[in-house]
Amino acid sequence: MPEIHPVCTRFHAAIELIGARWTGAILRVLFTDQHRYAQIKAAIPGVSDTMLAERLRTLEADGLVERRVLPTSPVQVEYRLTTKGLDLEPVLDAVLSWSHKWIPLEDH
Amino acid sequence: MPEIHPVCTRFHAAIELIGARWTGAILRVLFTDQHRYAQIKAAIPGVSDTMLAERLRTLEADGLVERRVLPTSPVQVEYRLTTKGLDLEPVLDAVLSWSHKWIPLEDH
Repeated sequence: MPEIHPVCTRFHAAIELIGARWTGAILRVLFTDQHRYAQIKAAIPGVSDTMLAERLRTLEADGLVERRVLPTSPVQVEYRLTTKGLDLEPVLDAVLSWSHKWIPLEDH
Repeated sequence: MPEIHPVCTRFHAAIELIGARWTGAILRVLFTDQHRYAQIKAAIPGVSDTMLAERLRTLEADGLVERRVLPTSPVQVEYRLTTKGLDLEPVLDAVLSWSHKWIPLEDH
């Protein structure tokens, strides 16, 4: 067998982080300037509150997203990309381009 | 609530496809010119045969990977990226760049 070149562990960690179910969609919504919890949920058909809350917590723990509680009444919570999160723009742009070339439009 | 801009369903389908557990690593290995089943497995520490075989089948079904049986003895099976798969290069490159900036090196 020829020499083996193991896959880069940092690449692997990154793709698993970004690729976790719903995470890509959440990041994309944050890039489209939708920041409030209710907006994010409404922009992602099919995501449950449990899943969305859990993913946002993970993204916050991983330093991609910052959670802010706004002093409104009732209180509103918004999520914004950190510098680390904003740096994913070329990744999301590349996925978007690829998808528009290769993923067929859904039948309506 | 301001107008909602739903996340693009094609983007969502693409990121879920690429982001499925192990899939990114498998694609990356194929880009590094390792094509034989045994090479792919050896390059991805921790992947089980069951998982690798199942992911390769999915990638083949999705048209990203082509499976070829080589007329050797014993028979060897190799996997190569199709045009659709090769078109993911900018995505993987962007993930690699991001990971080298943001994912810390593992302690050894």
